[in-house]
Amino acid sequence: MFKKVCIIGCGLIGSSLARAIKKNNLADKLVSSNRSKKINKKVLQLKIVDDSSADTKKMVQGSDLIVIATPLSSYKDVISKIKNSLKDGAILTDVGSVKKVIFNLVEKNIPKNVSWIPSHPIAGTEESGPESGFSELFKNRWCILTPSKKARKKHIKLLKTFWKKVGSKVDTMEIKQHDFILSITSHIPHLIAYNIVNTSLNIQDEKKSNIVKYSAGGLRDFTRIAASNPIMWRDIFIQNKNNTTKLIDKFIENLEDIKKAISSEDSDKLEKIFTKTKKIRKDIVEA
Amino acid sequence: MFKKVCIIGCGLIGSSLARAIKKNNLADKLVSSNRSKKINKKVLQLKIVDDSSADTKKMVQGSDLIVIATPLSSYKDVISKIKNSLKDGAILTDVGSVKKVIFNLVEKNIPKNVSWIPSHPIAGTEESGPESGFSELFKNRWCILTPSKKARKKHIKLLKTFWKKVGSKVDTMEIKQHDFILSITSHIPHLIAYNIVNTSLNIQDEKKSNIVKYSAGGLRDFTRIAASNPIMWRDIFIQNKNNTTKLIDKFIENLEDIKKAISSEDSDKLEKIFTKTKKIRKDIVEA
Repeated sequence: MFKKVCIIGCGLIGSSLARAIKKNNLADKLVSSNRSKKINKKVLQLKIVDDSSADTKKMVQGSDLIVIATPLSSYKDVISKIKNSLKDGAILTDVGSVKKVIFNLVEKNIPKNVSWIPSHPIAGTEESGPESGFSELFKNRWCILTPSKKARKKHIKLLKTFWKKVGSKVDTMEIKQHDFILSITSHIPHLIAYNIVNTSLNIQDEKKSNIVKYSAGGLRDFTRIAASNPIMWRDIFIQNKNNTTKLIDKFIENLEDIKKAISSEDSDKLEKIFTKTKKIRKDIVEA
Repeated sequence: MFKKVCIIGCGLIGSSLARAIKKNNLADKLVSSNRSKKINKKVLQLKIVDDSSADTKKMVQGSDLIVIATPLSSYKDVISKIKNSLKDGAILTDVGSVKKVIFNLVEKNIPKNVSWIPSHPIAGTEESGPESGFSELFKNRWCILTPSKKARKKHIKLLKTFWKKVGSKVDTMEIKQHDFILSITSHIPHLIAYNIVNTSLNIQDEKKSNIVKYSAGGLRDFTRIAASNPIMWRDIFIQNKNNTTKLIDKFIENLEDIKKAISSEDSDKLEKIFTKTKKIRKDIVEA
């Protein structure tokens, strides 16, 4: 499908994508670039890629597809390294969870003949690093593209096919809509999970009670989500600041409302809310 | 183990316990009582119990072990029905998630010769009703006993053995401590899950299809928890009102703190919180 593909950043997502590319024979040559020597060595050991080096410029040279799979806060640095080494007619994509900030940053820095087509594969686990990746991570998961207006149509089509070949269902979306929808379906759930686990830990420290022991009653599910990559999520919340903070306000408003209903023992109101939320599960399971 | 056991309320927990009793041969005769004719018919059809009727008084008569497995708000009604039919030397237990209110209610209404030993098996799924139960529900799960001081020691020992035989690990606890610990490990996580799903639903109906479509990014996990039995959870929050509302306040306080860090782009602070919550996962998985 591609002569040369370069993945910048072989963490959970990058290394999973590398494995999926290998498995489905989507590149004649697959290389990666990682800042850490240890990771460049590891991905070669694992035989996930054909070549890997901290010299991003060198790795990127001659690539038909370049995938940025590093934390959002590193894009500025990555782009300044690669912008003069991008091949004419290359496709540049990423796998970041927020698009607004990085879209503009990349758009204004790359040559005209490169098609900038951001991707967001909605997939992941609570694990991090190249050892935790697996080729089936993207299977049956949505991947949302938010192409630049300057991107060539045939490149958008090609990238869609690429994601389908690694198992994804593909959608395209406006950047604003993407960042809004994802703040509801992904960013706020993660933030809330971090906050509930953090709140429990603070109480545990304070009371020295054994909370971990009885966590199977519900908390355990949240600790899984709250074990996700701290750097990645820190960047997501900051780059999706407006949507995130607005949603936090709505969340608190609704929580205060439930608190009032509990305080006044308003059974009917509580039952009504909890019955409503039960219905959405059915829709999701059916979908 | 027992000559006659009566389970009052064959929902998810009650019917699972019935199945576990049958499977492990823990009763010569196993009966249940349900308000609804349909459920009494259903549990006989499913061969979960030997007899079942809406006449709770009749079902309870002659039982060595009686298990209340109905929502917390129904205990008053259940106790008034059965208090004069409890056999001398019987063990009375329940499976409720909050102990303070119902402990006192039962304690002051039952005859002296009945051992009142509340149980709380920390087990469940998002499903409800007798069809959703299964005999392995309690396997490797904690069951917390909060015995009355008037309960006979040999009865406490016997009930511990009973829970172990259905697969549980058993602990005893003070009521106050139980209600506090469980508010952190179970009640607040459920409340937060209800609230986040409710908040998502309240955000513009037109976007609902997108929210369902892309829910795999995190929200989906919460919808499972928020699909739990509305009546059961309504009662839990109201009966554990003090702990619940205090914890909501702490939760909001911490969330406001995170919001401030996001607004001011305080990367260090966010990273620190998210790294701390990651560690607890390791402890829980190891436990």
